[in-house]
Amino acid sequence: IETPIVAVAPGDGIGPEITDAALRVIEAAGARFETLPIKLGEELYKSGHTSGIGPDTWNDLARSHALFKGPITTPLGSGYKSLNVTLRKTLGLFANVRPCRSLHPAVATLHPELDIVIVRENEEDLYAGIEHRQTHEVFQTLKLVSRPGTERIIRYAFDYCRANGRKKLTCFTKSNIMKLTDGLMQSVFEEIGKDYPDIEQDHMIIDIASARLAARPQDFDVIVTSNLYGDIVSDIAAELTGSVGLGASANIGATLSMFEAIHGSAPDIAGQKIANPSGLILAGVMMMNHLGQGDVASKVHNAWLRTIEDGLHTGDIYKEETSKARLGTQEFADA
Amino acid sequence: IETPIVAVAPGDGIGPEITDAALRVIEAAGARFETLPIKLGEELYKSGHTSGIGPDTWNDLARSHALFKGPITTPLGSGYKSLNVTLRKTLGLFANVRPCRSLHPAVATLHPELDIVIVRENEEDLYAGIEHRQTHEVFQTLKLVSRPGTERIIRYAFDYCRANGRKKLTCFTKSNIMKLTDGLMQSVFEEIGKDYPDIEQDHMIIDIASARLAARPQDFDVIVTSNLYGDIVSDIAAELTGSVGLGASANIGATLSMFEAIHGSAPDIAGQKIANPSGLILAGVMMMNHLGQGDVASKVHNAWLRTIEDGLHTGDIYKEETSKARLGTQEFADA
Ligand SMILES: CC(C)[C@H](C(=O)O)[C@@H](O)C(=O)O
Ligand SMILES: CC(C)[C@H](C(=O)O)[C@@H](O)C(=O)O
Repeated sequence: IETPIVAVAPGDGIGPEITDAALRVIEAAGARFETLPIKLGEELYKSGHTSGIGPDTWNDLARSHALFKGPITTPLGSGYKSLNVTLRKTLGLFANVRPCRSLHPAVATLHPELDIVIVRENEEDLYAGIEHRQTHEVFQTLKLVSRPGTERIIRYAFDYCRANGRKKLTCFTKSNIMKLTDGLMQSVFEEIGKDYPDIEQDHMIIDIASARLAARPQDFDVIVTSNLYGDIVSDIAAELTGSVGLGASANIGATLSMFEAIHGSAPDIAGQKIANPSGLILAGVMMMNHLGQGDVASKVHNAWLRTIEDGLHTGDIYKEETSKARLGTQEFADA
Repeated sequence: IETPIVAVAPGDGIGPEITDAALRVIEAAGARFETLPIKLGEELYKSGHTSGIGPDTWNDLARSHALFKGPITTPLGSGYKSLNVTLRKTLGLFANVRPCRSLHPAVATLHPELDIVIVRENEEDLYAGIEHRQTHEVFQTLKLVSRPGTERIIRYAFDYCRANGRKKLTCFTKSNIMKLTDGLMQSVFEEIGKDYPDIEQDHMIIDIASARLAARPQDFDVIVTSNLYGDIVSDIAAELTGSVGLGASANIGATLSMFEAIHGSAPDIAGQKIANPSGLILAGVMMMNHLGQGDVASKVHNAWLRTIEDGLHTGDIYKEETSKARLGTQEFADA
């Protein structure tokens, strides 16, 4: 792509502050893209769009290569569907990729060796959003799993391992109970795995897998799993690094992909210029890699690592023992 | 109950060894019950009962007050349903109660303050076992949640807190995505919670809740959740104590309740007389409490604690630094 188009949605709460900070860092590293500002979230909810997204936005997204997105607050209440889920499904963002890595001692954790990437199926499963009231007192949600969707995510995960020099892929399911749906994922994993003899492969039942992950995250490398399990295990892995505030995620689609921090919009500290832009900066690293500008990605990643390791920290990860200075959002970006 | 009837199913793999050891300990503490030996598992699978349970057994269970059960191996393959799940559903064992507590330094763990009880709904949810092949390539599993089932488990959890001097109950759901099914559990939790102003109450979304549990289990007291989440979080909590081999669980029903270890049948070490009977001994403690013989329960629990704290350990938890002796199954029971 000559000059890719990046749609930018600053989002709600701390979104605008950290989006601004993250973009400044990425641009300073020499990123080559055109930005297209778009609106998502609160503003639209307030003006009566219950989906949180306007009709023009879909058109803007159709001509973008990436969406760089700040956190968004979906209003509570049964009238609203999660905007994140709407974006994932409407834009066909089939893979949610979440790298989690400890930075001990700069960021203290009980698990200094943790270095995991979670590849989460992002469109199917219980997130399909199909629910019924069957009788006055009985409710159901459908867990939906398709072979094409499963093949795509499993193949993506194996390819990801190869492209990123990762050695082992572990698949988490509950195939001993859900023999059709989760059983499908396990058998597709085993089938497709035959094409990747260079990658070590393992399948684990989600209960003991989550337990091992919680106790000894250093035993895992790349994990592939379905939507809901992925939601749970990626939060576990991120938290065990010592701070969810540092987590980034890529939502990969066939044409457009979306990049965001994994934390929320933290309305309680919005506008105070103290929020940590790290999650979004690292989302920017993933985006630049995805757009084929690996040089820019490395520059940003190294600068960020160096800043954290130098003890220049925002308040959320500031600790007397390990930090040298407590910086605001903009100062951290400058550093 | 004058003299309760306890059905005893030794189970498969290490089951018979540890059942024998656990029963000896409980009986030595003065337990008052009649045992009724029953058959479940491997033996029956081999003689062609694909359910793993024979017709006579149901009759025996109908006149028992408790089922004391060793671990069972359900054969792999789509023709077999998990016997554990069959028992839970057929016998109406609606609540699965799993206490998890650290015994640091006797059993080393990163989380010495962990002391949690998980109350897991045990009959509904994705475990209802309803699966379909919709088209050649699309599969579904039904997540089924009823108001009566939800009310029963929530009320049971609150009552458990009161009866056991527990101060706080936290409910885990994914109500932001599954507004009908998980939303029902959240709203029933809030409704019924009004009857228990003496218990502190909180609701958390399962992703961040699991992450907090993995990172800071000491922040939780009693947790109530649905079947699949309960499966995952109880394995996490048990593993974080330093050994799943020590976990016990009670499956509570209206008339009969079932008591078992949470670990599996470990066929690899079966017959070697080295398996740890602790999970089943602690299941016995829960059973004696349930049968109204709290004196016996305390005696067994204290003796067990003392043995572990004295460093008398089976091989699975033996560590140079913290153990004094490495005992076999029978020697541990004797101690
Ligand atoms: C906000 C919520 C809808 C979302 C999810 O459940 O996927 C979040 O937890 C995540 O992991 O991105
Ligand atoms: C063996 C399996 C069917 C069972 C479950 O999934 O409930 C086990 O993991 C448990 O937690 O008791």
